[in-house]
Amino acid sequence: MNFNRFAIPLLAGACLLTAFTGKAWAYESCHKSKWGPNDQIGALNNITQDNILAAAKLIKKGKSMRMGIETNAKTPAFAPRTYSVTIVRPGQDYAGQTMGNTKTNYHDDILNTWVGIGTQLDGLGHIGIDNTYYNCTPGTEVTGLSGLKKFGIETVPAVATRAVLLDMTALMGKDIIPEGTAFNQPEIEAALKRQGNMKINKGDIVIFYTGWHKLLGVDDKRNGSVEPGLGVQGARYLASLGVAMIGSDTWGLEVIPFENPGQVFHVHQILLAEFGVFILENVVAEQAIKDKVYEGMITVAPHRTTGSVQAIVNPTFIY
Amino acid sequence: MNFNRFAIPLLAGACLLTAFTGKAWAYESCHKSKWGPNDQIGALNNITQDNILAAAKLIKKGKSMRMGIETNAKTPAFAPRTYSVTIVRPGQDYAGQTMGNTKTNYHDDILNTWVGIGTQLDGLGHIGIDNTYYNCTPGTEVTGLSGLKKFGIETVPAVATRAVLLDMTALMGKDIIPEGTAFNQPEIEAALKRQGNMKINKGDIVIFYTGWHKLLGVDDKRNGSVEPGLGVQGARYLASLGVAMIGSDTWGLEVIPFENPGQVFHVHQILLAEFGVFILENVVAEQAIKDKVYEGMITVAPHRTTGSVQAIVNPTFIY
Amino acid sequence: MNFNRFAIPLLAGACLLTAFTGKAWAYESCHKSKWGPNDQIGALNNITQDNILAAAKLIKKGKSMRMGIETNAKTPAFAPRTYSVTIVRPGQDYAGQTMGNTKTNYHDDILNTWVGIGTQLDGLGHIGIDNTYYNCTPGTEVTGLSGLKKFGIETVPAVATRAVLLDMTALMGKDIIPEGTAFNQPEIEAALKRQGNMKINKGDIVIFYTGWHKLLGVDDKRNGSVEPGLGVQGARYLASLGVAMIGSDTWGLEVIPFENPGQVFHVHQILLAEFGVFILENVVAEQAIKDKVYEGMITVAPHRTTGSVQAIVNPTFIY
Amino acid sequence: MNFNRFAIPLLAGACLLTAFTGKAWAYESCHKSKWGPNDQIGALNNITQDNILAAAKLIKKGKSMRMGIETNAKTPAFAPRTYSVTIVRPGQDYAGQTMGNTKTNYHDDILNTWVGIGTQLDGLGHIGIDNTYYNCTPGTEVTGLSGLKKFGIETVPAVATRAVLLDMTALMGKDIIPEGTAFNQPEIEAALKRQGNMKINKGDIVIFYTGWHKLLGVDDKRNGSVEPGLGVQGARYLASLGVAMIGSDTWGLEVIPFENPGQVFHVHQILLAEFGVFILENVVAEQAIKDKVYEGMITVAPHRTTGSVQAIVNPTFIY
Repeated sequence: MNFNRFAIPLLAGACLLTAFTGKAWAYESCHKSKWGPNDQIGALNNITQDNILAAAKLIKKGKSMRMGIETNAKTPAFAPRTYSVTIVRPGQDYAGQTMGNTKTNYHDDILNTWVGIGTQLDGLGHIGIDNTYYNCTPGTEVTGLSGLKKFGIETVPAVATRAVLLDMTALMGKDIIPEGTAFNQPEIEAALKRQGNMKINKGDIVIFYTGWHKLLGVDDKRNGSVEPGLGVQGARYLASLGVAMIGSDTWGLEVIPFENPGQVFHVHQILLAEFGVFILENVVAEQAIKDKVYEGMITVAPHRTTGSVQAIVNPTFIY
Repeated sequence: MNFNRFAIPLLAGACLLTAFTGKAWAYESCHKSKWGPNDQIGALNNITQDNILAAAKLIKKGKSMRMGIETNAKTPAFAPRTYSVTIVRPGQDYAGQTMGNTKTNYHDDILNTWVGIGTQLDGLGHIGIDNTYYNCTPGTEVTGLSGLKKFGIETVPAVATRAVLLDMTALMGKDIIPEGTAFNQPEIEAALKRQGNMKINKGDIVIFYTGWHKLLGVDDKRNGSVEPGLGVQGARYLASLGVAMIGSDTWGLEVIPFENPGQVFHVHQILLAEFGVFILENVVAEQAIKDKVYEGMITVAPHRTTGSVQAIVNPTFIY
Repeated sequence: MNFNRFAIPLLAGACLLTAFTGKAWAYESCHKSKWGPNDQIGALNNITQDNILAAAKLIKKGKSMRMGIETNAKTPAFAPRTYSVTIVRPGQDYAGQTMGNTKTNYHDDILNTWVGIGTQLDGLGHIGIDNTYYNCTPGTEVTGLSGLKKFGIETVPAVATRAVLLDMTALMGKDIIPEGTAFNQPEIEAALKRQGNMKINKGDIVIFYTGWHKLLGVDDKRNGSVEPGLGVQGARYLASLGVAMIGSDTWGLEVIPFENPGQVFHVHQILLAEFGVFILENVVAEQAIKDKVYEGMITVAPHRTTGSVQAIVNPTFIY
Repeated sequence: MNFNRFAIPLLAGACLLTAFTGKAWAYESCHKSKWGPNDQIGALNNITQDNILAAAKLIKKGKSMRMGIETNAKTPAFAPRTYSVTIVRPGQDYAGQTMGNTKTNYHDDILNTWVGIGTQLDGLGHIGIDNTYYNCTPGTEVTGLSGLKKFGIETVPAVATRAVLLDMTALMGKDIIPEGTAFNQPEIEAALKRQGNMKINKGDIVIFYTGWHKLLGVDDKRNGSVEPGLGVQGARYLASLGVAMIGSDTWGLEVIPFENPGQVFHVHQILLAEFGVFILENVVAEQAIKDKVYEGMITVAPHRTTGSVQAIVNPTFIY
């Protein structure tokens, strides 16, 4: 999630912090994993060998699609998030210099980037409820200046399963679904029905296609401040089906403005902290949607940088 | 490639630069792509829909394996390569602070790392011959301080194809293949024969399993200074078969000490600059080797950081 | 202060946190500035035009001495502190490239460093008491992810005043004062007396010379884990005299092991949080000590990077 | 120098490179130091004990003035230059956490910045002539990916000497001197005459006051693309007088547009590469100019980060 875009303005409005505390809705912060006290991978436990075998059978056309957008200094991101890569040619500062009689020379690169820019996989240490994270883990057991002590992105296993694409643009007859449009059980079921009475299975990855990514580079301000997306009830519904991950071609997956303005990134909390369902952002399914293909095999493979909260990913969809 | 480990010492020995220039072996620096002057993806062009469909049929057990090792400050890397991730909690510096009546809080992370640490995909802009890169591209058209102008890692398409694993440890009866052991056509053919007369097809990805990764954290100095690996003739042989990528569980794929000491990272040049064959390093196939499974589907999906020379990857092998 | 070296091990020993809480010594966390609620520069207020004029009269030999040690990747610093500088030549990646008929070319550099490495000036936002900083300022009003909101190093005015050097090695007859040796009022007065009955004036900067810097590069482990230095009573004594800054040729100024093991960096707290006295670390007065000159003019001029907690400085001593 | 602002556009206009090469003006690239082959500090050799003693006598009012502007993310700088500082609180991620019964807590900071932002001291390795640097030093002996091998900013000795301020605004009767206004011998002499027939001595530091800094934050685009400043003849004139450093309240000291459009940053070359005269940029003398004080003692003390090309400095002027 490009969380910062929102978090800072929200926090800045100090009134918010009190405005909603009057109504003493108590959100339970501790949610135990059904896979035991040592579980760090949440709903990824739902992916079994049967999921992989079934997904393999969906590969019919022999097409593969990369779902990642590019990450660079122009990719929309809220302050203070920044990106840079610096290209270097160690020991070859002057061009005559090469190595050996093969005249070998080379480039190397240094990345200096906030991870939450571009296409992202949110790990289970990203969002908490009152400083408690997935599986009732206190923040003090998660946080660490030089890397998370728990739920680091390196813990994610090899993910290959069925992906279900939900074309909300076709369902709603709009090229770009407007901001604030919430996807809850009715919308999800309608999309499935429209796509040939599809069903979502345990261990699936669900990807919403909203057309929102078309605003990238066109209207970054609108893109990054609001979005259509998953609603609170829809999040609970999909989690109840046992999905492993949920993604969208938006920067934050969930509907913004929030359905309830006092519930800040509540969908993120439900998915990550309550159910251990991973979140994908800025995943673009353009090619498959054009092909009217709504299911296939997907792999999601984060760089295993130890202790990272998130990863810049590039899921592969094969159909 | 963890090229630095080698390049700097080699360059430091200035004598090397002259020692081998006496014998005027002229290595042609310009190698045109057979896919035309605009080609930036080289042998990835060999992957077709048939490759994908054939690979899907290899998924029989329903298992998936992540091939990436972890990247962190302890992962062996030559100076001046460094890695760090910094975990932050924007706007929540004091723990009482949460957002909304959902008491939302979160972690974010900042990566500051040389890309060539851990499991890597070398792009075609990584290695050149006398400052000329793949497809006869002059270095001046490739290089750029804030990102490569050509061959940036973001240009890699969605890669899904058959992977062939070659268990060199079983072939040679050793737990860890010693440094300096070259894999050329005879060794490659022997490995294929031992594994049930397998064949390598156009568009395949070939991965050597040498056991060398077992030195990680055990003898990092030996690990990072030498290695068993692909020889010059073997590189030309595999390239002639049309493979898309070649990888190994070593830091640099090719055999070190080099077969010919004056030919510095010549295998890298042959693969990247001559044939456009991508290179994978530190890819570990432990689980499949234990299962005695030598072929399956593989996906390789680099983070699409614009202009990066390389990517920290985590290929997924499905069988 | 290279605080990290200590803080992490101390924190790791969780027992410490409870061990000393039994004895309910209550350390008042709020200390108002006598220069009013808006004061951000503390004891630097003590430096007046008279201080400058008096200091100018101490310039007798016409010598100047830089007091900063070098900061680089080998300068001792506790994990996770790291330093790097990357040299680049924008747009001139291949050596033939120069600009204009003047054939202009240039280097540029990118610093990526924790600030607390090498010779440092600790700002008033560095250390707090129970999350309260100088002038009764709550941590929430100080902290900020992208820069301190208060007490940033850019607020430091032009500092030029008299410096008093205290040669503890000559006083104690040792080349290097051993770790754990505390400097309190008796030792300070003895040093002043030995140096010709010197007096410390309001607005002065006091610098201890202990010989400890001689361990740099020789025994970095010993250097960085313990040190001789200012004691709790000595800190209060010097603060009562109205000194503006106190420094030493050690990494952390204050005596370690601490005089009272439960009082962690208490001297830092007294100086920074109670009295607004700035701290200098790793300031080396070698040349003046050899010249047996113990007073002169000093300038301390931090890089004005907005919101920095500390600065890498290089005070100039003129005599 | 904020060189990038200019260099990239200039280089981008490839025509420039050829446009002026037709007229074969040969600029000698090798200029030997008169202080011998090992000299790395150039005109700083001109500062003697007499300079310091004479400067001390200029301290009459007891005032000190910091000459550095702030460096932060909003300080004008050309792409790809960026600045960030990240504030951290190691081991204290949750506010309850303090150390010991003193309840100690602290902030630390990580700087990640191009050095050429804000007030800068250009070292002698910054600019070359056809890849040759000061004292006939080939670029290959200077450059180094992880720090300059020669002329690193850490080599600068303790600089304390007389500074002469030249108020060009009063001379020319303008609040802000317009861009393109060149300061050569006539203008310099006129300014000296107006200020009471002042003389510039060997070892002095000369600072131009142009009012240009008033554009900071007001018209950053104009500020950073052009400027009034030192001309080619004026640079040679001041160098011939033996000045140690020359600075201005502009981002690049020298007049832009250049007097001769084919001579790109030629003043920089003359000062740094020919004469070893150091350059200061964005040094603001506001307070002294208001006081109509034109001479005093100055100290310039770069952070001693080993191998840095430049330093972010904050000169202290005392009068």
